[in-house]
Amino acid sequence: MSERIEPRVLKGFRDTLPTAELLRRELERRLETTFRLFGFVPIDTPVLEYSEILLGKGGGDTDKQVYRFTDHGGRDVAMRFDLTVPFARFLATHGHELPFPFRRYHISKVWRGENTQRGRYREFFQCDFDIVGADDAAADFEIIAVIDEALTALGVDDFTIRIAHRGLFNRYLDRLGVRDRSTEILRVVDKLRKIGEESVKESITKIVGRKTADAVVEYVRPESDFDRTLSKIEELCGGENEDSHRMMHIRRRLRALELEERVVFDPSITRGLDYYTGVVFETFLTGLESFGSVCSGGRYNDLASLYTDRHYPGVGASIGLDRLIAALGETKVALQPPAVPSVAILSLDESLASHYDRIARSLRRNGISCVVFFEKKRLAAQFDRAEKLGAHVAIICGEDEYRAGKINLRRLTTRESFNELTVDEAITRIRMLIDGPARPSDS
Amino acid sequence: MSERIEPRVLKGFRDTLPTAELLRRELERRLETTFRLFGFVPIDTPVLEYSEILLGKGGGDTDKQVYRFTDHGGRDVAMRFDLTVPFARFLATHGHELPFPFRRYHISKVWRGENTQRGRYREFFQCDFDIVGADDAAADFEIIAVIDEALTALGVDDFTIRIAHRGLFNRYLDRLGVRDRSTEILRVVDKLRKIGEESVKESITKIVGRKTADAVVEYVRPESDFDRTLSKIEELCGGENEDSHRMMHIRRRLRALELEERVVFDPSITRGLDYYTGVVFETFLTGLESFGSVCSGGRYNDLASLYTDRHYPGVGASIGLDRLIAALGETKVALQPPAVPSVAILSLDESLASHYDRIARSLRRNGISCVVFFEKKRLAAQFDRAEKLGAHVAIICGEDEYRAGKINLRRLTTRESFNELTVDEAITRIRMLIDGPARPSDS
Repeated sequence: MSERIEPRVLKGFRDTLPTAELLRRELERRLETTFRLFGFVPIDTPVLEYSEILLGKGGGDTDKQVYRFTDHGGRDVAMRFDLTVPFARFLATHGHELPFPFRRYHISKVWRGENTQRGRYREFFQCDFDIVGADDAAADFEIIAVIDEALTALGVDDFTIRIAHRGLFNRYLDRLGVRDRSTEILRVVDKLRKIGEESVKESITKIVGRKTADAVVEYVRPESDFDRTLSKIEELCGGENEDSHRMMHIRRRLRALELEERVVFDPSITRGLDYYTGVVFETFLTGLESFGSVCSGGRYNDLASLYTDRHYPGVGASIGLDRLIAALGETKVALQPPAVPSVAILSLDESLASHYDRIARSLRRNGISCVVFFEKKRLAAQFDRAEKLGAHVAIICGEDEYRAGKINLRRLTTRESFNELTVDEAITRIRMLIDGPARPSDS
Repeated sequence: MSERIEPRVLKGFRDTLPTAELLRRELERRLETTFRLFGFVPIDTPVLEYSEILLGKGGGDTDKQVYRFTDHGGRDVAMRFDLTVPFARFLATHGHELPFPFRRYHISKVWRGENTQRGRYREFFQCDFDIVGADDAAADFEIIAVIDEALTALGVDDFTIRIAHRGLFNRYLDRLGVRDRSTEILRVVDKLRKIGEESVKESITKIVGRKTADAVVEYVRPESDFDRTLSKIEELCGGENEDSHRMMHIRRRLRALELEERVVFDPSITRGLDYYTGVVFETFLTGLESFGSVCSGGRYNDLASLYTDRHYPGVGASIGLDRLIAALGETKVALQPPAVPSVAILSLDESLASHYDRIARSLRRNGISCVVFFEKKRLAAQFDRAEKLGAHVAIICGEDEYRAGKINLRRLTTRESFNELTVDEAITRIRMLIDGPARPSDS
């Protein structure tokens, strides 16, 4: 063999080893289960699209980060940098064949050539879910209910969903006479949690002067509860209006499902992105707020306007999977990936290989994952290897057990033995050992 | 809004609509379940790698098809065109932290700028599974057992796994004195099923002359059963040898699990790819052989030799998901994606919205997917929409039912009604309607 190639991985990219990948897939499975329970269906779109499609008007910060190149056919193409833009294009392409309101989820990779010094990866997963084709409080509420159920399904039980309404904020800016500076102001307020109230006030002062800055900071300060905050905001906006009614309706639906404890009306939530027009939300794990929002989103009026005349109002959110996994690592929420394999069948006698195969088949038909060892190693080394694989149980069957139609089990964590079991008895026992006595039924 | 952008998709790329994506994910779920039952674990690798890593020695046909470009940092990068090369690099990177024999699966997208006129896509899924770190008949056998179980899990029950051994073929070519033309000859034989025996003979004649061509064609013709074929091959190779012993061992393991009917020793199977050194296999659905092999693979001696001195002998296979889905479409194997949502809760009275929310929550907690309609539409239109969503059941609950604490169900396919049920009764009934009376338990 000639000179070797150094097995490098590109900066900002990474391999995922089995334990981490099992965990990621377990998360994905639970999220998918939740989305489907709410009637959301999956779609997929190409990783590569025409650059024109992905970059649209272009010129933003995102553009510089996009992996863009010329393909074999001389086309200007790019790798998707989020799942929202391809979804907008998807709606323009397939709108006529979809049932509206359309509920979809999409969990997939996206790529951004970001600065890796901030601990960011250039390849990462996004997890989006949206209800498109309805401008209705029921849809806004439903997205909040999905966020709640999704996090609960992941075993997280201490979190707060902070919501606000961009329309209300804009009404207020209108009254202050600075509606034309809305985008800039919203972007500054969006940084409140990071830079603090004083810095926000300073920055806004530079845009619209001190008096208005004070008024804005007063607006974004939440009161002690949802209703009081809503009352204050209504007053600041000059009375009840369509947007405050929307918030009231959402509030009513939340209370009816006992979700009001989870949801805080926080007028400082703005989401920096231009396209939000109605409710916006962010989600923080209690005590882990420094990780940032693990699930954010909001309502947009017209998602696909770049590509079509048809209007697609919608509301949706995105779960930051990497951030969530990192944050969960800091909590007691022990999200365990499944043990694969659960059982190792040790090789005591090579001539019994087919007997081991048959035992393995019985286990597998009962949903128990297992490997048949074929390594010619001492028993101690085989036990060692079974433990390294993360198996819970080893099956030991030599010539004597084979003749007697029995097998022996050993629980690897505790070294307990269960001897002279039939295969059926062994299966029952293994289930108890794997699942524990009081396992809740899988959803 | 200024000028619109035409929502085009790149040639050779495609969107996946919900029904197709639900089906693909159902396939993937069943394959994953099978892989895990055999103790295979998932890994992931980056979509982008250094071109040097992916193209290695380079110069082949593949190179021209690879999406390759220069990234922001001036690096020569490429999108992966298969999952084998990244796995080889992965082994070189992580070999020291993996338990061997290492069983892994990887189901993910790859990209090739192929000629789309042949009905090929430029973005498609590969599904690979391998056992690495053991040169053992037990591993060869295990891969065949996984292929069998994987296809069975997809509901396919009429298929044949054709196996052969490259080592035996090479021994024979050695005896014929044409071992140095092995690669060329194997590539021609690989086309036998497509171009027929006569064309194969002609092509080989051009390489090594008529007499040798006749001998090769004689070699690749299978006898009436496994044992007879093996005897013939042994004889042609000059007697028993390590490779024929390997085949014998595999045969014994297959027979012990009653798998011998599924597996044919077919010496014409060669697999075109250079890196196979031992057993090779292809899998054909009975009556759908024209779709080509739906699962192929074999044994390789040294997967990661481009990147490391360590030896990684292995055996593995790859399921052609797109081809399999296309072929299954031609069969009676009704692989149904799950209905999402199963139930639609119609909106009879807006003031009951939270009541509907609570019914929905009860259903979801019992694993039943449902949507709460909020569209203000006539009942007939709502039934219509429920059917379009693919729901099995509609829940109807107006003011009267609400007061009585009851709900009405309608089975959408048959228009049967089940009236005045409590929510618990409704859940039991819905389960019967969705699952049918004799549904086999989910694996």
